[in-house]
Amino acid sequence: MLRIVTQRTEAESEIKRICDRIYDDQMIHKEATVTEIIQTVRRKGDTALLRYTSEFDGQDFTSAELRVSGSELDAAYQQVKGGLLKAIEMAHQRIEEFHKMRVPKSWVHFGDKDIVLGKRYTPVDAAGIYIPGGKAAYPSTVLMNAVPAKVAGVKKIVMVTPPGQERTINPAILVAAQVAGVEEIYRVGGAQAIAALAYGTETIPKVDVITGPGNIYVTLAKKQVFGRVGIDSIAGPSEVLIIADASANPTYVAADMLAQAEHDQMAASILLTNDSRLANRVSEEVNRMLENHPRRLMTEKAIAHYGLIVVVDNLNTAAELSNQFAPEHLELEIEEPWQLIDQIRHAGAIFIGHSTPEAVGDYLAGPNHTLPTCGGARYSSALGVETFLKHSSLIQYSPEALKEVSGAIALLTEAEGLPSHGDSVRLRLQDI
Amino acid sequence: MLRIVTQRTEAESEIKRICDRIYDDQMIHKEATVTEIIQTVRRKGDTALLRYTSEFDGQDFTSAELRVSGSELDAAYQQVKGGLLKAIEMAHQRIEEFHKMRVPKSWVHFGDKDIVLGKRYTPVDAAGIYIPGGKAAYPSTVLMNAVPAKVAGVKKIVMVTPPGQERTINPAILVAAQVAGVEEIYRVGGAQAIAALAYGTETIPKVDVITGPGNIYVTLAKKQVFGRVGIDSIAGPSEVLIIADASANPTYVAADMLAQAEHDQMAASILLTNDSRLANRVSEEVNRMLENHPRRLMTEKAIAHYGLIVVVDNLNTAAELSNQFAPEHLELEIEEPWQLIDQIRHAGAIFIGHSTPEAVGDYLAGPNHTLPTCGGARYSSALGVETFLKHSSLIQYSPEALKEVSGAIALLTEAEGLPSHGDSVRLRLQDI
Repeated sequence: MLRIVTQRTEAESEIKRICDRIYDDQMIHKEATVTEIIQTVRRKGDTALLRYTSEFDGQDFTSAELRVSGSELDAAYQQVKGGLLKAIEMAHQRIEEFHKMRVPKSWVHFGDKDIVLGKRYTPVDAAGIYIPGGKAAYPSTVLMNAVPAKVAGVKKIVMVTPPGQERTINPAILVAAQVAGVEEIYRVGGAQAIAALAYGTETIPKVDVITGPGNIYVTLAKKQVFGRVGIDSIAGPSEVLIIADASANPTYVAADMLAQAEHDQMAASILLTNDSRLANRVSEEVNRMLENHPRRLMTEKAIAHYGLIVVVDNLNTAAELSNQFAPEHLELEIEEPWQLIDQIRHAGAIFIGHSTPEAVGDYLAGPNHTLPTCGGARYSSALGVETFLKHSSLIQYSPEALKEVSGAIALLTEAEGLPSHGDSVRLRLQDI
Repeated sequence: MLRIVTQRTEAESEIKRICDRIYDDQMIHKEATVTEIIQTVRRKGDTALLRYTSEFDGQDFTSAELRVSGSELDAAYQQVKGGLLKAIEMAHQRIEEFHKMRVPKSWVHFGDKDIVLGKRYTPVDAAGIYIPGGKAAYPSTVLMNAVPAKVAGVKKIVMVTPPGQERTINPAILVAAQVAGVEEIYRVGGAQAIAALAYGTETIPKVDVITGPGNIYVTLAKKQVFGRVGIDSIAGPSEVLIIADASANPTYVAADMLAQAEHDQMAASILLTNDSRLANRVSEEVNRMLENHPRRLMTEKAIAHYGLIVVVDNLNTAAELSNQFAPEHLELEIEEPWQLIDQIRHAGAIFIGHSTPEAVGDYLAGPNHTLPTCGGARYSSALGVETFLKHSSLIQYSPEALKEVSGAIALLTEAEGLPSHGDSVRLRLQDI
């Protein structure tokens, strides 16, 4: 069921097919629905939110109940066991420590003739975090979105998440939010939640940046409001690419492939190896492990459609194919991983060596688990503190410095046909 | 014609109106046209490009002539006067110097138990730069887009720009491109050029990031292909906000306002001042200067619709109103500009003091002139080296480090219902 490919051309076309899996027709057909939801929320505010929540989530309540109350937040602590709370706190601490490393700082540079140049970093005023609900309740996602916003210094952080039965929110999510310092939480999901964050309603404040994963409607809504607000990325289904050699343990590799596949029936798990014996053993292990898998049906679908093993001549070829795919997660289960890293041009996160399963990074190693998918690593990076920061360029010229460049500016403004640009310099020169 | 407002509430509603000027109906109606152009280029490649170029630019030629030839590149040097060439070279040098400051560098951090964490920065493989053509031929824009890509280390930089009469490209643009080290240039513009860069055609290579300004079709096309490729921003019409006090020279302020207005009839020029005498004198000066302005008609329209003077009680109020607008360009023509800077939360670039007109930054001060417009400074920043870089997170755990966190990961995977995530750690522990 997990196919093994040995031909280079077949491998390349399979990798391209898997990489393009997000560009399915389903996106186009849902565009119009999402546009309508956004426009309705923009016009009708809370009323639209409550109507969509009734329709899509089957939950009915009033505007006043949109926000999760203080007593619900308190109660969540009672429902989360001590061990899990400690685990959330440990993850929070490690994620925070990592995100505090190398945060961009404001700077100025003093040049000749009293020229001052620089960059001044400031956080966004308000950030909105989308957390999926339903079956997939991920406290780790709360931490991965809230921590970088907090470290960036964002004063107002708002979380939205769709309500479950009896309009409840998963208590682990509420606890993770509080551990991360987020207490303004609204029970609303889907495209309507994104519209509320982008335009504001009577109850939900307008924010400047929206981050967080979601289903196809959430993703399309984020793309549509981009430009009105900032967004983290256009997230697609998750993926792992593993490069392994004879030193790899087939059981570990198989477990890592299934850990990806169990997320979603569109999740992709690819193994590139120079050892055909390993290829066969991993394939067998995956089949064996699938037999008793609690999420067998979905996981099997993902493996069948988007699972692949490629046997390559050598690890250089593996690096080349990996660069063509530009994986969200790359695992290097090889004897000398650091020697191959220089050949990796595109990857969201690289998990190095035999004792670094992706799960370590998913939960608590520190680096963000929100990563570019479906080839996005060719041009973008993990969610981070930078997502919530921006900078202003700083420029100060002295009269002498202005005089020095005035001739060049005059020629350039003339070439571009912008007379007032020239005047703005020329008039000042008269007084120098 | 240049209105003076003194009431706070009127000022705020005017500022909001001007800030929202990009969200006009015109965008929505052109969406479908742009979608069709992109899909056609995707299906028909060069054939579609040539057909659209004939239709929209009135220029007919073959695929083989899409690329600007070596002899055209050479000839451009003959058409650009020595002084202008020197000005382009001076601008290039200053822009390059600034962009080389504080470029993010790869790093690793060594933690307890042989944990290694870090970030590894790499450039995108290929970048596409869009340069507008027609009346507005801006060599400065070539430098502002090409230099950060070069400094980032991008190996393949491709430029597109629409052809003028007899399919020529403005020689100053061709010279600026060569000074910046870009020699792969195609004569194609509009949404069709963006589609070509995003999907590739027989002649034009697919790139990973597309940057550069353009008209409404170019902007909509960039938004549509975002996700398939990276883009710099959704650019709107340009704007300046000037904060001035009694120390400001009304002639300088008026020239700076017109230097913005002359770009485009949707350009915005706003003055906030605590000195009502200055307000009146600037308004008079603007009227006087407009009389003989070579681009009077357009500039007058911009001033009439999107020009505004607000008299405020004090400079703190000016800073607050400026933050509401989040200007692309902010000029501080006040006695103590550095004292006000801490109150500025959102601005693309800040021009400090009386001898720093925006034109200095537009051409050669060094910082990038591609800046967020229409409120984009609330969440985004200037084009820069970072636009062409991305990073991979690096994570390496030792067996001991994995063992230490295994309990926490087990609890988290259980809470999230992801058994294989748990297995991927548990199976490894058996061998430690």
